Amino acid sequence: MLLESFLYREIHEQPAVMQRVLDRELPNIQRLVAAIREHQIEHVVIAARGTSDNAARYAQYLLGAVNGLLVTLATPSLFLLYQRPPRLGRALVLGISQSGRSPDIVAVLHEGRRQGVLTPAITNMPDSPLAQAADVVLNLQAGVEQAVAATKTYTSQLTLIALLSAALADDQAMSAMLLQLPAFVTATLEQAATIGQYAQRYRFMQHCVVIGRGYNYATAFELALKLKELTYSSVEPYSSADFLHGPLALVEPGFPMIAVAPSGVLLPEMQAFIATVKERGADVVVISDSAETLALGQVPLTLPAGIPEWLSPIVAIVPGQLLALHIAHSRGYDFDQPRGIRKVTETR
Amino acid sequence: MLLESFLYREIHEQPAVMQRVLDRELPNIQRLVAAIREHQIEHVVIAARGTSDNAARYAQYLLGAVNGLLVTLATPSLFLLYQRPPRLGRALVLGISQSGRSPDIVAVLHEGRRQGVLTPAITNMPDSPLAQAADVVLNLQAGVEQAVAATKTYTSQLTLIALLSAALADDQAMSAMLLQLPAFVTATLEQAATIGQYAQRYRFMQHCVVIGRGYNYATAFELALKLKELTYSSVEPYSSADFLHGPLALVEPGFPMIAVAPSGVLLPEMQAFIATVKERGADVVVISDSAETLALGQVPLTLPAGIPEWLSPIVAIVPGQLLALHIAHSRGYDFDQPRGIRKVTETR
Repeated sequence: MLLESFLYREIHEQPAVMQRVLDRELPNIQRLVAAIREHQIEHVVIAARGTSDNAARYAQYLLGAVNGLLVTLATPSLFLLYQRPPRLGRALVLGISQSGRSPDIVAVLHEGRRQGVLTPAITNMPDSPLAQAADVVLNLQAGVEQAVAATKTYTSQLTLIALLSAALADDQAMSAMLLQLPAFVTATLEQAATIGQYAQRYRFMQHCVVIGRGYNYATAFELALKLKELTYSSVEPYSSADFLHGPLALVEPGFPMIAVAPSGVLLPEMQAFIATVKERGADVVVISDSAETLALGQVPLTLPAGIPEWLSPIVAIVPGQLLALHIAHSRGYDFDQPRGIRKVTETR
Repeated sequence: MLLESFLYREIHEQPAVMQRVLDRELPNIQRLVAAIREHQIEHVVIAARGTSDNAARYAQYLLGAVNGLLVTLATPSLFLLYQRPPRLGRALVLGISQSGRSPDIVAVLHEGRRQGVLTPAITNMPDSPLAQAADVVLNLQAGVEQAVAATKTYTSQLTLIALLSAALADDQAMSAMLLQLPAFVTATLEQAATIGQYAQRYRFMQHCVVIGRGYNYATAFELALKLKELTYSSVEPYSSADFLHGPLALVEPGFPMIAVAPSGVLLPEMQAFIATVKERGADVVVISDSAETLALGQVPLTLPAGIPEWLSPIVAIVPGQLLALHIAHSRGYDFDQPRGIRKVTETR
């Protein structure tokens, strides 16, 4: 059942989907870059929900750090329910949605058009209402995603955002590094069997906290969402800094945490954080390529070496997807069709 | 012990603090409004952590709906740790911090000054590093807050944001309504004894979800934070729309939820949401002024009648503060000094 499931197969399709994106989407990326320059874009507003909103978080850090763009996560209710949209100025208004069908996300793009700003979309459905409201459509190239929990469409969203950032910065080193992405993910997937064993340890875990910061703030959110959708545990994402402003009170001996801590600018920060919660007895899964950091936790989920920090979120989510899959499997849950949710959620 | 605690007293001081803000801070608000007009501000960036970040969420909706301003919640790590701040353009960069001492928040204001933008601050400490980095300081007028969990400084932050929004819109009806705020909060506090009885029901609750949307998205976040800090339960905030995109899978019979659902544009949305989770067996606390909506839940926390939706977050958090206090009391926890956290958290 595990190996034949849609979720298992879609997780393992990710390198192929990324390769298709790299092979086919550069012309659309270049059209968008040209339009951004023509419109003299000064900042970015992103409308998205669920998994796509976690892709938006990655864009917030990547477009900020690499391209100097201030990125705002839109508040869709101001646009659709309150009918009081803010002034968008010289914004780029980007919609991200696998299905392209949630009315609140489409409404933000419609308002963008009304105000005359550039409105691209990232979607798996080039005929969707979102795509129809968009000036330029970046296609996820993911094929049909059958499992309700998004995996291959998430990493494809991140790949398109990274391609956009590299093209906008005209950064050849970034573009070259992106060509290695499918191989990094393939190497990560080779650990699948080990993660199945680790997952046994979390059979009865009822709540958990996932910590990431900077580029991997997105990874913390997306991993927490996968764990909630698939294992029905209560899992909350935090930046290490926000966690210290109050929620640290939750930590008692045995408190389960997952720390996303790849090499990079924030590694010392994450190492200090892990030490702080370990002093209070936390039980920590560490996702990292750093042997020293992996050794700080009870359970190490190893990433391949050589991935730059800005690219790491696209790889670091993969062991998390596998962990969520295997915990759900150990609990006997239906991980292709979790209770109570559907593939397409239409909210206002 | 309960009645003599700092937390109990500070919750009950809130009408007096708001009155001081209304009496004393209008000149500073007017200075800030004049500066905003002079600088031709086009959008707003807010730097804050913890409780203050929840005040920022209120500002995101209020300044958006009333003043048409796009509000971005800053990503402080881009400014301090990565040293890659985005271009701020014609932004207002607002720092919110009770203590005014967190280095990451101060760093965002310093970068704002470096880029030549207007940098006001909202703080309880007019001599703090944050206040020193600010062009205009709005004072919380809260006196010393002794309990680690913030209460009176949170509602004072919201009051100042509402005063700013009203003054910027030159909206006399809003300003007049704000004068009634202390009386609304006093009326809400009169329920304190009832909430103490309801809290018994949650003595052994280990996890919980708090739902709010629009203006009260902030209330959901702040109530979840109070419950985490004071009761050590795992409590997660959501907008009703985001909850439907995946986390709905968590709901099973008896799943505890708190819905913040005052009268206003979003009430039908929240009513439909409560009906959806009740079908799946959720056990719902409802915070509302609407009798029909209160009747949808197992436990009603009643708000006074006549509060407009935009003002409701400043009142709707109060029964939540009391609920968190009484649950902590029923568990025998130290609610003035929760384990593991301090009043001033300095993060980078």
